[in-house]
Amino acid sequence: MITPEALTDFMQETFTNARFIVKTVDNGHCTMIQEIGEEQLRPGGTVSGPTLMGLADAAMYGAIIGALGLNDTSIMSVTTSLNINFLRKPKADDGVKAVCDLIKVGKRLIIGEISLYSVGEEDKPVAHVVATYSVPG
Amino acid sequence: MITPEALTDFMQETFTNARFIVKTVDNGHCTMIQEIGEEQLRPGGTVSGPTLMGLADAAMYGAIIGALGLNDTSIMSVTTSLNINFLRKPKADDGVKAVCDLIKVGKRLIIGEISLYSVGEEDKPVAHVVATYSVPG
Amino acid sequence: MITPEALTDFMQETFTNARFIVKTVDNGHCTMIQEIGEEQLRPGGTVSGPTLMGLADAAMYGAIIGALGLNDTSIMSVTTSLNINFLRKPKADDGVKAVCDLIKVGKRLIIGEISLYSVGEEDKPVAHVVATYSVPG
Amino acid sequence: MITPEALTDFMQETFTNARFIVKTVDNGHCTMIQEIGEEQLRPGGTVSGPTLMGLADAAMYGAIIGALGLNDTSIMSVTTSLNINFLRKPKADDGVKAVCDLIKVGKRLIIGEISLYSVGEEDKPVAHVVATYSVPG
Repeated sequence: MITPEALTDFMQETFTNARFIVKTVDNGHCTMIQEIGEEQLRPGGTVSGPTLMGLADAAMYGAIIGALGLNDTSIMSVTTSLNINFLRKPKADDGVKAVCDLIKVGKRLIIGEISLYSVGEEDKPVAHVVATYSVPG
Repeated sequence: MITPEALTDFMQETFTNARFIVKTVDNGHCTMIQEIGEEQLRPGGTVSGPTLMGLADAAMYGAIIGALGLNDTSIMSVTTSLNINFLRKPKADDGVKAVCDLIKVGKRLIIGEISLYSVGEEDKPVAHVVATYSVPG
Repeated sequence: MITPEALTDFMQETFTNARFIVKTVDNGHCTMIQEIGEEQLRPGGTVSGPTLMGLADAAMYGAIIGALGLNDTSIMSVTTSLNINFLRKPKADDGVKAVCDLIKVGKRLIIGEISLYSVGEEDKPVAHVVATYSVPG
Repeated sequence: MITPEALTDFMQETFTNARFIVKTVDNGHCTMIQEIGEEQLRPGGTVSGPTLMGLADAAMYGAIIGALGLNDTSIMSVTTSLNINFLRKPKADDGVKAVCDLIKVGKRLIIGEISLYSVGEEDKPVAHVVATYSVPG
């Protein structure tokens, strides 16, 4: 199993515009934090919707790497669809946390759900995502 | 009806990290182009998923302003949910175009669909979005 | 191209609990009407949500047969995901109409959108659906 | 809190075409079983998609009644959107089970997720749903 540190390095090389820090990664699960800077904020200080969508997508990518290993198959898997419900206004201060669980790992498609939280308020999700990735080959 | 130029100014003040240019705006419709720079790209030169989601969301915001006028109600409306299907790999070169049609403008919720295209290849959508906005009040 | 009459026969053999009548079928498009009986109604006379979801799903199945022909590949394709927005209360009287357009016909996945209307009120959709089918093989 | 028996009675009066049996109901949670008969099957013996969508929808309705009580507000709440991912082929034999958790109970919108299982195979969901209900008033 790839370590959180190794996966963090991979994520930061792949997604250079975001500061993702992997907290845990396991077979089918990944938790990740994104530190929030100016470019992820909307006027009024709230975290932008696309930032939340990008974090959810990255956490799922991490969970897929946890499930399949870090190899061509996992690396080349791509998002085919994503559904997000925005639930509460996120606080930007301490970052945003994504918790991803894969619901099904198929030969062609992987379905996962991701809950997003303001760091420090992890009883009240700010958004909920269900996403589907396509596995190459 | 707000002009494309005036709506472009408003969008660029509101979304400072993206270069949105409104092409058309009408009651329930909006077309918008986003010029693609380094920060919207993924390794390999493709436009990132969150960039496409953000453009779709902005085009719907524009269509809502077209439907309700530029006022507190339209400005303060917020995305409650967004569903995106990624269809084809976008070409980054000439920007990405969003075409939004509102399907229903209700008192509380507005539902719209947005098709996204690589500029110059407007017969083959790169993504399709359905989004819901909540109207304040 | 399969005729509307032949596709109607196929649909009625396959979906014995619903009265589907195919109006048009073409490469990537299908329009279909469902006659509404007691078992599709909710108290108060409105058409049930699952009835609308089933009609949208069937119209997409018809559009896929129109695109691929009536063969093992099209017949064995299955819905992998469906997203529905309920827009207006449907009138049950004259049936419900589904208009399906396929957005992308891929080797593995087919994405389509379906608008649903009360027959006779076809300027005001009662629901909007985006669905994905998986193609076998 | 309404009892499972009382909620079962209410569900069977409201949804006369389905045999829903409520197993548990709590503030924000509901589990429900649907007995499968001929009319819910597809050729080949699999449970139809609309049947699964209807069960998920009913389980969420039950969870909303658990959260708000059985009153005009909960009874008159309606589904505004539903998103389903079909994961595995359900076995029809012993019925289908729905487990609903409400993610957010707002003044206007309630968002919930529902996992569906073949009874007896409750480690492998056959479908996953996220749905939004609108609260009247």
